[in-house]
Amino acid sequence: MQKYLTDNKDRFLNELLDLLRIPSVSADSKFKEDTRRAAEFVRQSIEDAGADWVKIFETPGHPIVYGEKIVNPAAPTVLIYGHYDVQPADPYELWDSPPFEPVIKNERIYARGACDDKGQFYMHIKALEMMISTKSLPCNVKIMIEGEEEVGSDHLGEFVKAHRDMLACDTILISDTSIIANDVPSIEVGLRGLTYLEVEVIGANRDLHSGVYGGAVANPINVLCEMIASLHDENGHITIPGFYDNVEELTADERTAMNEAPFDLEEYKQDLLIEDVKGEAGYTTIERTSIRPTLDVNGIWGGYIGEGAKTVLPSKAYAKISMRLVPNQTDKEIEEKFTKHFLSIAPPSVKVSVKPHHGGLPYVNPTDSIEYEAASLAMEESFGKKPIPTRGGGSIPIVALFEQELGRKSILMGFGLDIDALHSPNESYGLFNYYKGIETIPLFFKHYAALKKEE
Amino acid sequence: MQKYLTDNKDRFLNELLDLLRIPSVSADSKFKEDTRRAAEFVRQSIEDAGADWVKIFETPGHPIVYGEKIVNPAAPTVLIYGHYDVQPADPYELWDSPPFEPVIKNERIYARGACDDKGQFYMHIKALEMMISTKSLPCNVKIMIEGEEEVGSDHLGEFVKAHRDMLACDTILISDTSIIANDVPSIEVGLRGLTYLEVEVIGANRDLHSGVYGGAVANPINVLCEMIASLHDENGHITIPGFYDNVEELTADERTAMNEAPFDLEEYKQDLLIEDVKGEAGYTTIERTSIRPTLDVNGIWGGYIGEGAKTVLPSKAYAKISMRLVPNQTDKEIEEKFTKHFLSIAPPSVKVSVKPHHGGLPYVNPTDSIEYEAASLAMEESFGKKPIPTRGGGSIPIVALFEQELGRKSILMGFGLDIDALHSPNESYGLFNYYKGIETIPLFFKHYAALKKEE
Repeated sequence: MQKYLTDNKDRFLNELLDLLRIPSVSADSKFKEDTRRAAEFVRQSIEDAGADWVKIFETPGHPIVYGEKIVNPAAPTVLIYGHYDVQPADPYELWDSPPFEPVIKNERIYARGACDDKGQFYMHIKALEMMISTKSLPCNVKIMIEGEEEVGSDHLGEFVKAHRDMLACDTILISDTSIIANDVPSIEVGLRGLTYLEVEVIGANRDLHSGVYGGAVANPINVLCEMIASLHDENGHITIPGFYDNVEELTADERTAMNEAPFDLEEYKQDLLIEDVKGEAGYTTIERTSIRPTLDVNGIWGGYIGEGAKTVLPSKAYAKISMRLVPNQTDKEIEEKFTKHFLSIAPPSVKVSVKPHHGGLPYVNPTDSIEYEAASLAMEESFGKKPIPTRGGGSIPIVALFEQELGRKSILMGFGLDIDALHSPNESYGLFNYYKGIETIPLFFKHYAALKKEE
Repeated sequence: MQKYLTDNKDRFLNELLDLLRIPSVSADSKFKEDTRRAAEFVRQSIEDAGADWVKIFETPGHPIVYGEKIVNPAAPTVLIYGHYDVQPADPYELWDSPPFEPVIKNERIYARGACDDKGQFYMHIKALEMMISTKSLPCNVKIMIEGEEEVGSDHLGEFVKAHRDMLACDTILISDTSIIANDVPSIEVGLRGLTYLEVEVIGANRDLHSGVYGGAVANPINVLCEMIASLHDENGHITIPGFYDNVEELTADERTAMNEAPFDLEEYKQDLLIEDVKGEAGYTTIERTSIRPTLDVNGIWGGYIGEGAKTVLPSKAYAKISMRLVPNQTDKEIEEKFTKHFLSIAPPSVKVSVKPHHGGLPYVNPTDSIEYEAASLAMEESFGKKPIPTRGGGSIPIVALFEQELGRKSILMGFGLDIDALHSPNESYGLFNYYKGIETIPLFFKHYAALKKEE
């Protein structure tokens, strides 16, 4: 199998580059056609890999690509999940090279989606091709690649509910996460949930002259700033009533273990060019980004933002606000608590509305599961080192949904790195990581099949 | 003279509409050529009115148009000031008709600049034409129309300094303010000053994934909101140290007199569609918009502001912030105090910079001056009612500069109304006001010349 990989290295890379050239930005309707082209590309790739059948399933949003390879009804079945949609690429001017014209520099692929998630899910299609071509596929494989992960997987839930039998499996394998370093493999056993909302603050019924009305009429920008500022106290705690009610508190031992993961605060600050970190008092950076919930403004706008100066007292101001959740918070619960609180702190001089965007539940996978053991053995074999279990700060809402609808745990065997700049300009993915993933995935199938036999 | 006005009513209006069709937005460089066309239009109009000579003076920014009509070296000289540049028209989508395609609806002219200041300074050119054509100009007239008032008159200061002799005059007449109502004429004797700045807050060196870094790395939007929120206390007082040091406190009598001006809070709220006003505790709406300094955010932006949701932890956030000043604050003093304070409250986790845009000094003109008396008599004659002295909230920085450089007071005989929506979508100017201005201005010259004789 290693030989097959070596012989096809260049083709495996070029195919990924072709996929990265398609600007499948799910959040922006002007890329609707491109997103569909990406789905077609994925369908063709799965077919070429040797699947029994592949199909593009329509949804009210972007389509879902699904395919199967059933080698033996008695063998365990692994469902592979990934997403072909990507984050918006703006601000474009901050990219060193165009986001949808991939380039290879110092052994890295630079392009939007290089790691998240095109580079990672495509490893599975290539691994599948290898295993089928070399007649060494020990499990049945089902593969589902969606196009709305970056906008909250709005229609995947209904799809999974409607196709429970088709998707029936023993576990779900997902590569959409990171390892600590190329010489420090790790597996994410926890993910944060997400509640994402957009708020609108309206003052007067029209933009006003700041000289004629300033000081007497509420300025929606100032009010929005005051409301947002009040959402954290001086210790960085979130002030929304009941926000922490269901937060799972880890034991001292669990926290100690977690903080033993390799982490250098100075390097961290150096990489980001910051003088200091900022977060909830009483918790380390590792804890702040994994076991603690957060609240961040992802975007804000209002008034005159053009060149020069305009002395306007604007009528409206907006913000996109998201909260990362931890067990056992739920996105619905937090959405309700945020909305109730935010409306309650609005002064009578303005009108405030809150529009929910999307959300997802937090998730934790035990390290004593068969899928974890298989992933751990596979990585140990390919990296030559036993991986460390970590809890990530990101969210893959679908994982909680799988557990709920399919009754199966997901194993998050990702191969990215912190430096990949996901969601940022100059996103990249290491060639080492791409090929290491293609090498490791078949080992997961091997160990998983073996462990299931022993069950 | 009244006959001349009646005979030429339609032409006077059509000429103004032609001027309003030129998008002379000084803040935005993409309108540079249009702004120059407006200057040329003004030059031609002054020439056609019968001036001895007119010239376009170049500046590092937009040009200044200047012309003269000297009838008698012994007669008093009045300098007319106005500006042909206008505020940006965005948001365009909120206009009922295109901002630079003027339309007449219910006796009002709708267009950007209809009132501020094209409609108002053009009245002077038409009044000048009337007085010259009817051989009834009792004073020497100098007229200076600039193109950078909406961006802080950056180059007018140097120009005035460099042309003190050319601009020598007995008083300066300006129409760039409002009256209380068409049946309640008024004259502004006070103007607020202005300090306008732009602030930048930088967190990490790149946009980050809000899941991977959220909660540990400072979010520049959240930080900016906290910094802005902290600039006012719970009573609406501005918290910048020393901000109120030089604020002139009016006597109880002065405040009582000022609050006797016709004002209906319910109408005011109804017009703006707001449940409540918001401002500094202990002061009325009239006081908050005239004798008290203010701080407003005129624009804010950062992060993802496109369609849909992006879970980004942005690298940068920006805001445009302006402060209205009252006697005896100075724009430089407040610029320094704001900058010093704003930098001092920045947490170590971010980098903050403050860039000054422009400013202007506050101004007050005594009601016992000859020019005030002349304006009062002129309005009383044309409106049939003695005007009320008021203090406006807006700023005309140039007025303080005139006093400093030319040693002369300005008289603010404006004809606008609060409903004109200056700086807002659907700016308009009443036909009544336009013609009433053209009718009143010659009366000012008549009374001013007479009063100067009596001196």
